Order: sequence, then structure tokens, then C-alpha cells
Amino acid sequence: MDFKPSEKGQDYLKRVKAFMKEEIFPIEARYYDDMAALENRWVELPVIAELKAKAREQGLWNMFLPEEEYGCGLLNSDYALIAEETGRSFIAPEIFNCNAPDTGNMEVLIKYGSDAQKAQWLDKLLAGEVRSAFCMTEPGVASSDATNMAATAIVENDEVVLNGRKWWSTGIGHPKCEVLIFMGLTDPDAPKHRQHSMVLVPKDTPGVKVERMLPVFGAYDEPYGHGEVSFENVRLPASAIIAGPGRGFEIAQGRLGPGRVHHCMRAIGAAERTLELMIKRAVSREAFGKPLAKLGGNPDIIANARMAIEQARLLTLKCAWLLDTQGVMGALSEVSMIKAVIPQMLQTIVDNAIQIHGGAGVSDDDFPLTQLFAYARVLRLADGPDEVHRGMVAKLELKKYAGK
Amino acid sequence: MDFKPSEKGQDYLKRVKAFMKEEIFPIEARYYDDMAALENRWVELPVIAELKAKAREQGLWNMFLPEEEYGCGLLNSDYALIAEETGRSFIAPEIFNCNAPDTGNMEVLIKYGSDAQKAQWLDKLLAGEVRSAFCMTEPGVASSDATNMAATAIVENDEVVLNGRKWWSTGIGHPKCEVLIFMGLTDPDAPKHRQHSMVLVPKDTPGVKVERMLPVFGAYDEPYGHGEVSFENVRLPASAIIAGPGRGFEIAQGRLGPGRVHHCMRAIGAAERTLELMIKRAVSREAFGKPLAKLGGNPDIIANARMAIEQARLLTLKCAWLLDTQGVMGALSEVSMIKAVIPQMLQTIVDNAIQIHGGAGVSDDDFPLTQLFAYARVLRLADGPDEVHRGMVAKLELKKYAGK
Amino acid sequence: MDFKPSEKGQDYLKRVKAFMKEEIFPIEARYYDDMAALENRWVELPVIAELKAKAREQGLWNMFLPEEEYGCGLLNSDYALIAEETGRSFIAPEIFNCNAPDTGNMEVLIKYGSDAQKAQWLDKLLAGEVRSAFCMTEPGVASSDATNMAATAIVENDEVVLNGRKWWSTGIGHPKCEVLIFMGLTDPDAPKHRQHSMVLVPKDTPGVKVERMLPVFGAYDEPYGHGEVSFENVRLPASAIIAGPGRGFEIAQGRLGPGRVHHCMRAIGAAERTLELMIKRAVSREAFGKPLAKLGGNPDIIANARMAIEQARLLTLKCAWLLDTQGVMGALSEVSMIKAVIPQMLQTIVDNAIQIHGGAGVSDDDFPLTQLFAYARVLRLADGPDEVHRGMVAKLELKKYAGK
Amino acid sequence: MDFKPSEKGQDYLKRVKAFMKEEIFPIEARYYDDMAALENRWVELPVIAELKAKAREQGLWNMFLPEEEYGCGLLNSDYALIAEETGRSFIAPEIFNCNAPDTGNMEVLIKYGSDAQKAQWLDKLLAGEVRSAFCMTEPGVASSDATNMAATAIVENDEVVLNGRKWWSTGIGHPKCEVLIFMGLTDPDAPKHRQHSMVLVPKDTPGVKVERMLPVFGAYDEPYGHGEVSFENVRLPASAIIAGPGRGFEIAQGRLGPGRVHHCMRAIGAAERTLELMIKRAVSREAFGKPLAKLGGNPDIIANARMAIEQARLLTLKCAWLLDTQGVMGALSEVSMIKAVIPQMLQTIVDNAIQIHGGAGVSDDDFPLTQLFAYARVLRLADGPDEVHRGMVAKLELKKYAGK
Repeated sequence: MDFKPSEKGQDYLKRVKAFMKEEIFPIEARYYDDMAALENRWVELPVIAELKAKAREQGLWNMFLPEEEYGCGLLNSDYALIAEETGRSFIAPEIFNCNAPDTGNMEVLIKYGSDAQKAQWLDKLLAGEVRSAFCMTEPGVASSDATNMAATAIVENDEVVLNGRKWWSTGIGHPKCEVLIFMGLTDPDAPKHRQHSMVLVPKDTPGVKVERMLPVFGAYDEPYGHGEVSFENVRLPASAIIAGPGRGFEIAQGRLGPGRVHHCMRAIGAAERTLELMIKRAVSREAFGKPLAKLGGNPDIIANARMAIEQARLLTLKCAWLLDTQGVMGALSEVSMIKAVIPQMLQTIVDNAIQIHGGAGVSDDDFPLTQLFAYARVLRLADGPDEVHRGMVAKLELKKYAGK
Repeated sequence: MDFKPSEKGQDYLKRVKAFMKEEIFPIEARYYDDMAALENRWVELPVIAELKAKAREQGLWNMFLPEEEYGCGLLNSDYALIAEETGRSFIAPEIFNCNAPDTGNMEVLIKYGSDAQKAQWLDKLLAGEVRSAFCMTEPGVASSDATNMAATAIVENDEVVLNGRKWWSTGIGHPKCEVLIFMGLTDPDAPKHRQHSMVLVPKDTPGVKVERMLPVFGAYDEPYGHGEVSFENVRLPASAIIAGPGRGFEIAQGRLGPGRVHHCMRAIGAAERTLELMIKRAVSREAFGKPLAKLGGNPDIIANARMAIEQARLLTLKCAWLLDTQGVMGALSEVSMIKAVIPQMLQTIVDNAIQIHGGAGVSDDDFPLTQLFAYARVLRLADGPDEVHRGMVAKLELKKYAGK
Repeated sequence: MDFKPSEKGQDYLKRVKAFMKEEIFPIEARYYDDMAALENRWVELPVIAELKAKAREQGLWNMFLPEEEYGCGLLNSDYALIAEETGRSFIAPEIFNCNAPDTGNMEVLIKYGSDAQKAQWLDKLLAGEVRSAFCMTEPGVASSDATNMAATAIVENDEVVLNGRKWWSTGIGHPKCEVLIFMGLTDPDAPKHRQHSMVLVPKDTPGVKVERMLPVFGAYDEPYGHGEVSFENVRLPASAIIAGPGRGFEIAQGRLGPGRVHHCMRAIGAAERTLELMIKRAVSREAFGKPLAKLGGNPDIIANARMAIEQARLLTLKCAWLLDTQGVMGALSEVSMIKAVIPQMLQTIVDNAIQIHGGAGVSDDDFPLTQLFAYARVLRLADGPDEVHRGMVAKLELKKYAGK
Repeated sequence: MDFKPSEKGQDYLKRVKAFMKEEIFPIEARYYDDMAALENRWVELPVIAELKAKAREQGLWNMFLPEEEYGCGLLNSDYALIAEETGRSFIAPEIFNCNAPDTGNMEVLIKYGSDAQKAQWLDKLLAGEVRSAFCMTEPGVASSDATNMAATAIVENDEVVLNGRKWWSTGIGHPKCEVLIFMGLTDPDAPKHRQHSMVLVPKDTPGVKVERMLPVFGAYDEPYGHGEVSFENVRLPASAIIAGPGRGFEIAQGRLGPGRVHHCMRAIGAAERTLELMIKRAVSREAFGKPLAKLGGNPDIIANARMAIEQARLLTLKCAWLLDTQGVMGALSEVSMIKAVIPQMLQTIVDNAIQIHGGAGVSDDDFPLTQLFAYARVLRLADGPDEVHRGMVAKLELKKYAGK
């Protein structure tokens, strides 16, 4: 047994940590101030491009991709710890070109894209020149049950026609967002998991309209944002369908495993940062003659946070290791487990950190805790609500006893 | 034993419910839209003044005041259920001139104000012509321990001089807010609970400055808001001190009991509204072939919400009844219990409602759930964090065994 | 609103408290020692009969029956507080002839029994001369769904024939237990809630066999006990059917309301006793230079216990008041709520009390905490598991929105 | 990163699993029946000796000892998974001579024992010929604070004299228990952690008296048991002190790390077995037309159990790996974390399993759930209550920020 990353992984992790410390953390406050001062925040501040160039130069680029050809050849279990580190800053993932949903979209193109699709979009995405969005969840139905999906991707001769309404399309507000992956119903008569298709849609295709950007606890998360998008008779050549009609669920499943590890490890990084904020506050303020850190149930809160983070990290690393050694099918339960466990863990820790900060904890201006809370809260819904993931874990558990 | 309000209480409750249904709920959506359309939201929309006039005309005015002379002569236990009803709408309390912190401030003036203080401020507050704020919590110290308070109210000859910084002064952003009650240290050598004074401060007194308004989960709650206020050599005649120097804690304690019942009952009203939203959503959306309301653990979530609300309401009503029959000293533990129980209960229910709403739950535009969440979250800190109230309950519990 | 019991209720409560203090608590330790010393504990110790005589003499007898004719004419809400008091001692309920399941069985006979049935059994039960059991739950099926019931009560001409196996028949081990109420399937073709019958069965009827007594966390709760009972071709005259064939569920429902209030209030009494034990221990032992009562999260545990008990009691009293004023149909939700809330509340408090007692908490010899734990744990299953009651609360909640 | 045990570890694990399956599980039911039939259960049934011989023959013996010389040369992280497997049966650990407290006592002797001490006791313990107990916790003080310890081990010339009362001395009831390790205060003037000594005490030394065996939830856990032991002027040669006077805490700390891993991994084995029981019951019983496993919140309960177990196991394995690679000082926080996490996790899962079993869950005769519950409940107190371990985790967490 060995809980250390590989040597290569350790080397990258060390370099990412140094980059975070030297380049990213120091400019964070300024970045947010500059953003706040803007009338229109749906822009990329120049510092981002500068840092991206610097990261790329140092080879800290597309590290999420295990393929040597495209990324750095890192194992999922190695990259996981890097994702944790980048999760400590909301602006870090993009700087290393490791930001969702681009990461998942690149994976899809690598695994399922045609040469033409790759040529048109993958190269630019790998270069960080454009950004992308993923359009799956719909406002009109309970998306926890993916088979509820009502949007359509109908093949008519050599065209595919898209109709429907999607929302929570993350990153669609970014000025560089040029392409979307849309998922819709193609053939209601096919077997249940062969009915849907994924289609590559240039954002400026006629009929695609961003109806509104969605606020999350009052924040729009500019310049990325979450959009509600309507598709009205959007016509594209059938070659825009990824891997051909009816393969939407197959692709979605392949896309999920590593993506969940990334999400969860970033959330663990956020949890570490939250715990750090909590303790720093708790040791620096006094009440009833003691630092808050030693008052009443607060030591338990700190210990519980530490114990929850350690366990969550190990579970996610194990999941990554299973993906590395056994593939998605060998990590089915773990991939659901981490998604059910980590966002809830983060939410609890942030909630406790708010409490320990007192009034300062709910004031967005003073600490990033409300932002972290919103992030955790959304993560409990995004990419399937907690309930769905627990349901999957239970189902796999029961399966062990089937026929016994 | 009798769990019904008095006949008078029932009559008022019925009339308030009718007013809410006919006058307030129907204009809510429009009110928020109008507000959202404003450049400057720190204004009172005309509809508020109209509704206030109508409520006053109907005698639904200052119902929180048990004194016949000033209010309607309602018992705390009768008014409690009215407060619950008004808690279903964020704009309702003001319309009945029952909004915090004006309510507490009026009580203070009635019980402790000099004739001059009453003449200058109480009449206008009772008439709903001006609004007020309460300045106690400080940014620089852990306010959970009130003796930490660092701001000063020093008596110099026939003047009192205020210095310090306060925050979370609710309502200070309102255009009609004209007067503050400031609490500060007067005599550090006096016994622990005789050191502080409360002072009536016209908001336009030189040296009073609202440094900033505080966002709560991104929202400023215009036109009320929460302010950070600096006091720099604010000079007032010593007659501005309420009830004389050193009586700050005594006044604070007297102010607390009914105020907490009001807060908690409004929060219960908010919880009822949240549960209503939760169930309406849960019965109207399907997943896996069932309405969400019948899926997995959701019935438990609904049942738990109902059970928590019922218990919380009964505890608060019992507290109100104790205040009515035995006064604040007979309700010491209950006054702390409700403050520890109800905000947490509301937070849990809102969190579950968000989960059941899926993505719509975190989008401020679609449902008021993020607003309700922020309200609950703040309430766990305002007027003492949960921890302090649990501490008081424990202390009183242990006291029963002292000397045994 | 008035949270006090009636004057009559207060008078009885005062007298019961005095009786508990003077007659019961002082003999408890001796009672258990004497019991422990016995080879065969399925006996009634003489002290019980003595105390029963004394209680009866003082009119503290059958207080659970609201009917003047049979009991004391106390309201459910008045008796509730008496049940709480008797819940502080495991031997108290029987002494006042207020012990389950005799209480429920007497109610059934009063409401549904024929004159002959009353003459044969009710009088002796009212006099405390015999004891009874209730045979409903079955080992072979999930009894949470009562329609699962497999035992049969088939009418053959003027006889009824019972077959099947029951368990958790409480009190069946008592030497004075002479009669059982058996519930079984009579007509599978009748509407769902008209299929079952209740039958009065003398315990010595041929074919009735107590197969074993069931240990609960190692304890048999002698001399009452919980039995597993087989019924093999038990033949009785059809007149033994209570209220006629097919009325089993109707009777069960009528039996439930007050019975749950009794159970829950006794459990609240047990919770009060547990909290008392917890605090006494916590103030008398020191660690790290402080009494346990002030250490770390312990004050929160004490406060949470107090807050949970207060809320649970109020909910139960409200339920009793609804039973008094609106009958069972007006208290349907509350009757389920209390059953879901109170046993879990008790279990949590006992678990915390064990923790605060350290090793002494798990040793049966030193404190009654393991006994209290077992009592709470069983109560979460007896008379329907928590899940069923939460399900009923949710169902009634959803009903409010049906058709909307 | 690699989550697999070493090849040697895998080999042993495979052989232990086979032994469990072929030799231990098949005789369990018979073992308990035979035990139950005995008048005096403080005996070792012959089957135990037979199986011990067989296990020893196969080299499955003393596997907990990392030292090749004494054990099998297994890493802690390898043995951990073996401990988990043996934790599935209460009788298994002894059969492999891996039962607490003998394990810890052998470790103490190996690391700190003199040659004479080893010759006298270690060889017999390694051979499984005698058993031992550990006497540290005291009835008269809160043992969560070890410095409370009141028993004394006074050096008088070349003798050491023991006085005091200990309890929860596990295994002391075993007929082969011949030696105790006693911890007591030697020099109250020495630095805080140099005041106590550990002394090897033959159980038959004059003055040593087992006052009583302690029931745990009614069970005595024969033939091991937990004893309360008085020491009255017990005189031994000073050479009985392990490693010399004043080294008690030093030895205790060294003893803890691996011991906690063993305890926790066995508890994880117990949790796996409980989950298995839970699911088997849940798929085999129906209510409301569905197997319990798919009803309401039950899938969540199953999923939560799986997620908690996985996380707990990984945390414990990481702790074992740290012990292997960095020693006790490198695993200080983890050693406390696992002790705070795992017993509580087990208790929760057993409690849920009881609920899903319905009445059968609380009946000792039908399922081992009450026994498992008692085991979990005791484990939350034994070797330091949860609170102490969380306190240690918090302390180490705060230390990271000291001076910052």
C-alpha cells in the first residue's frame, strides 16, 4: 500500500503549488477588485491571459488529460491532488486550462470526436483559445432523471435539428465561449439508453439564444456564469453529432468518471481553504476569555472538519486510482460515492466556518465564505443531485446480493 | 390547557390574514420587479406608504405592543401568531408598523425613555413616519460576548461623547431612518453589567458615518440594509442617554424577550412558506415515474419539516405565554431556547427545499429560496449566535442542580 | 392560550408526584435487588400489590380513562402530565393500573366490548386483578405494513378459529396475564380495512402457546416480558370477536390515539430522568480541571436535550388537547408526529447520557441507562416504526395540496 | 499511489479469509448455543483450543506483530485488512492469537520488557497458553483525563506496592488470564507524564481481587468479560515495573497506535457484517408492495453505510501506512481520528440495521445486532471517549497555526 503520488505526480504537484503561491494567490484580491469595478464583467481580464501563457510555458497545462499526446501523461490519482490545489482559488483552474466544462468537453472530443470535429474545436480548446459549454439540464423537467430530457436532436436527411431549452450551462457567459455540446432526444423508439445524441453546436448558430444568465445566491460568477439557453430549429450538418446518433448516454457516462474526481478534488481544496479561514478566525478572536478555537463545541467542529476532509480525500483518491487501474466500470460505485459525499462535506464545513466568523461570515465583502457556500450548494445539485448518487451506490450494493 | 389564541387574538389574526391575502401577497411580485428595475433601491416605493395607511386605518398597527395606550392590547401569545403570518412575506412587517428594529426601539422608549425622548422620537415611530436602527454589534470583536464591546459612550460634564465602530445595524439604509440607538462603554470600573449605556443618536449628528452597506449572500436587502457605521467624537447632550448612564445591559435584557418571540414567529412563518414551496414543487415534478414528493427520502424530509415547525411554534408560543404570565424573568430559558432552535430549523428546511427544487432552488430569479436561506443564516448569528443561546440554556439547567 | 393543566388535572398531578416521591422512588432500588436475587423472576413481588392497593385507595387508579364511570374523568391533556411523571420509574405505571397494554385493552373493551365481554374481563382489568396482552405483530412479515398480517381468524359457523404466530406480545410473561387480544385475517375478499378481526382469547385456551420470551438487549423485563406466541387451531365461540368480524382495523385506530400520548409522555418522563442523571454525573466528575458539565460540547448536549424535551412535551400535550377537543380524526397527524419524534429524542438523550457517564454508562449494574436505551430503542419499533409514522405525516401534508 | 496490500499481505489475507470461511463461520452458531447451555460460561470451549492449534499450524498466528522474530513480519497496513476480516466474528481474533488486550500487552513486553519479564510472560502469551488483562481505567474518576488516575504504584526499597481500584479490565474473566498490567501513580512530584508506572502483576498475587464482572447492555461477554478489580497493598519486587518507574505514559503512548488500528479495523469488519445483515433483511422482507431495500429512505441508509465504511477503512489504512512509514509520531492525528470516527460509524450502521430488522433487530436471540450495538457503544468509550480523540485532532490542527 502506498498513499503517495507517483514521482512525476509529485513533481507536477510541487510546481503547481509554487505557481499558485507565486502567481495566483498574490493577484487574487486585485483580480476581484478589478472585476467589481467593471460595469460589464463578462470579460476576461488581461491578467488571466498572461498567467495562462506563463502556465503553459511551464508545462502546467491540460494536466487533467492522462493522454501524453494531449496532456501531461499524469495518472488520475496524480492529477487529483493537483486539482485539489487549484480548487483553493476560483480563478486557478482556468489558468492551467483545467477548467470545467472545457475539461469534460475536451475528453469527449478526444474519445469520441471525428477528425473533423477535433480539427475544428479540439485544438483551440487544448490551446485555451476558445471556451465551451455543456447543455444537458433542462428547466422544464426534473433533470435528476436524465430520461426526462425533453429537448430534441432530430436527424432529417443529412441534417440534425435541435429544439428545446437548457439551463445551468456553465461557462456560457464567457466572451470566448464559442462552442456548446448539446444533448437531446433523437429516437424515442430506441432502447432507453440509445435514444439521445450529443451535438457540437457553434454558439453563433442561428436559433441558439442565451435567454438569461442565472444568479446563484445573487452572484453571476462572471465572466463564466450559468446560462439558460433556447434552441429553436437549430440546423446543423449531421456530422455535428458526436460519434453518431443515439450515443449520448454512452458518451455522458464515459465523460463522468474523471470529471467527478476533478470536481470533488477541487471541492476538497476549497474545504481545506475554508478550514484554514475557520481556524485563523477562531484563533484570532476571543470571547468569554478564550480564543473561539477553544470555546465550547468549536474544537469538535474543527476536528470534525479535518476528519471529514481526510476521509473524503482518500475516497476520491481511491476512486481516481480505480479509474487508473480498472477504468470507469471498475469505479462505478466510487464515482457516485464521491459526488454524494464531498459537496455535502464542503457545505457543512463552510456553514460552520460562517458561524465561527459571526457577522463577517455572511458578508460577501469580508470573506469568501458566502461564495464558497454557494459553490458547495450548487455542487450538490450539478451533475446529478446527491439523491441520485446515493441511489446509484445503493443499487450497486443491492446488486451484490441479487440471486442470493 | 388551551392552545387557541384569545378571542381578541383570533379576531386580529383573522383580519391580518385577510389583509395579507388581499393586499400584500398580490402585490409582492410587482414590488420586487419594480425594485429590481430601480437604479437606486434605497427608496420606499409608494405602494408601501399606501398599504401602511390602509393597515393603520384598519387598526392593524403596532400590534406588537401589549400596551393598550400605544398598541392594540394584544398578549404576546396572541401577537405571536400574527407575527408568524407576517413572516410569510418580507415586506409585510413594515406595513403593519411591526418591523424590527423599530419594534424593539419603540419598546425601549416606552419602558425607559424620558418624556422628552418620547416626544422627540416615539410618536413619529408609532406613526410609522420615521425609522430607526440599533447599533450594538462591532466588527472588531467577537460580539457573542457582549462584554467585549469596545465602543465608548463617555460622559463629559453634560455631554456624552460616542466613539467606535458598529456593524450589522439593520435598517440603517432606509431613507426614513432618522435615529439610532447606540450602545457603548461608559464606565469600565462599574460592575460588569453596569458599565454600558444606550444613547439616542439622530442619524445626522456630526461624526456619525455609514461606512458601507453589508451584502448578505450578495443581497443588500434594500431599502433596509445592514450598515457598518463609524462614530467619531459624536457629541450629544447627556439627556440623550436612555434611562441614564450604565443601564445599557438592563435595557438590552428587557428589550430581548418579546423581540425574540417576534423574530422566531416570523421565521416560523417563513418556514411554513418554504414548506409550501417545497411541497408544491415536489408534487408537480416527476422523476423515475413518480412525483418527487413520493420519491426516496423526500416524504421523510416533508414530515421532518412539519414536525420541526410544529414543535418550534409550540415552544415559541409557550415562551410568549410565559412572558405574558410571568414576565421576562419567568421565560429566561425559553427566550434562549427559541433563538437557538428556530433559525436552525428554518435553515434546514430551506436547504431541503433548495434540494427539492433542483437548479431552480439556487437561482434567485426563480424562487425566493436563496433569500430565505440568507435570512435564516443571518438569524443564526443576529442577536447572539446559536452557541450563546445554547450556553444560556445549559447554564440555567445546571443552576437547578447547584448546591445539590 | 393557556399551557397549564386544569385544576383537577393539577390536583391529580400533585398527588401522583407525592405518591411517586413517597412510595415508589424509595423502594425502587430494593425492588430491583429483590428481583435480581430471584431464580424465577416471572412473579409479582408483594410490594407491587401493596402499592397498588394504596394507590387505588387514594383514587390514583385508572387515571388514563377519560370516562368518569371507569376512570377519574381526566382529560387526555391532564393525564398526559401524569403519564410523564409515572414514566420516571419503570414500575410506576402498573401501580396506578395505568400500564400498557392493559390500558389500550381496557379502552377497547369499553368502546367496543359486548356486555358479556365486559363482564368477563373488563371488571377484573379495571380492578387490576388480571393482566392482558395484545397480539398483533408477526415474526414472519414486515409488520410495518399491517396489511401484511398472515395470522387468521376464520369464522366457522358459530366459532372463530385462530391460527398463526405473533410476537412482541408485551406483558404476556406476567403471572396474572389471563387474556389476550388477537388480531387476524378473517375475510381476504373484504375491502382492505375490513378484512381483519380482533378476538378476545383466554390465555389458557388450547392451542395457545408462548413459544419463548424475547430478550431485548439481553433483558427480559420480567415479570412482564415480550412473548412469541403460536396459535394453532385455537377455537372460540364467535362471540369472542370484538364488535364483530372485520372491525379489527377500526378498533386498532380508535385504540391508538390516547395510547400513543401515554407512551410518548412516559418516554418524556424517562427523558427527564435521563437528563437528570446526565447532569448529576456531569457536575460531579472532573476532567482537565473542569466539571464535565462545562467541558467542550457538553453544555450543548445538555441544552439540546432540554430543548428537545420541551418541544416534544408541547407537541404531545397539543396532541392530547386535540384528542380532547376534536377526537382522533382531528389529531391524526399529531398522533403520528409524536410517535416519530419522542422515541428518537429519548434515544439520543440516553445515548448522550451514556457517553457522559463513561464506562459506568454501559454497565447495567451502575446506572439504568442501558435499560433506558433499550426502552427507547424498542419504542422506535413498537406500534409502528418511525418510518411509518413519518410516512403518515407526509401523506397528510401532501393531502393539503391535492387538487391544487 | 497504490491501494493494494503487499503481496505477502494479500497472501495472508487470502489464507485468513479461507480459514474464517472454512473453520470459524461454520462453528459460530454451535459455539454460541454451547455457551448458552452452560451454567458457568467462564470457560474456554474445546473448539477454541482446536482452532487455535490449527491456525498456529498454518502460520496464521500473532500476525499483528510486525517483528519477524515474534510475528509474521507483516506491515500494519497489511495486517489491518486481516484485522478487518477477523472483526467479522467475535470469536475469530483469539483463534489467531490476535485478541486484545493480549496484543497490546505483548507489544509492551517486546518493546519495553526486561529479559526476565519476557521469559516469564511473553513466551506463554506468544504461544497463546495464557491470557492477560490491562488495568488502567478507574471507577472513581473521569478516566478521559488520564492524569486523574488515583491508583498508586509506590516504590518502597526493592518493592513496588500497588493500591487502588480499576475497572473495565477486559479479558480478566478468562480462565487462562494469569497476568495483568497495572498502571498507577508513582511520583506525584515528577513532570506530568513521568509520574506513573506500569507494573506486571500475576493475577494470583495477594491483594488482587476481581470485585465483580461488569455487564454491558446485559451481557458479560464470557469467557472474556470486563472486570472491576481492587488492589490492596499488592506487593511485588520492583523488577515487576516495566522499563522502570515513571515510564507509564511513555509506554501507553507507544502501545496505542497499532492497537487503535487493530480495534478500528475489526470494527470495520463488524460494520461490513452489519451492512450485510441489513441488506439481506432488506431484500427479503416486503412492505407496501416493495422490498424494504427499495422503500423510502432505506436506499439512502444503505448508501450512507457503504460510503461511511469505505471512508473509514481508507482512513484507517492510511493511518496504518503512516505507522509503517513514519512511526507513531507521524500518525498522531490519524490515530486519534480513526478512534473518533470508526466506533461512531459502526454504532450508526448497527442502529440503522436494527431499525430495518424491526422487532427482530432488538431480540438478542434472532440476530447479533444488539451484541454488535453494545460492542460499538463500548468502543466509543474504551481507550478514551470520542471527545478526547476529537480534542486531540483539534489540538494538532491548531498547532499548525501557532505563531502565525
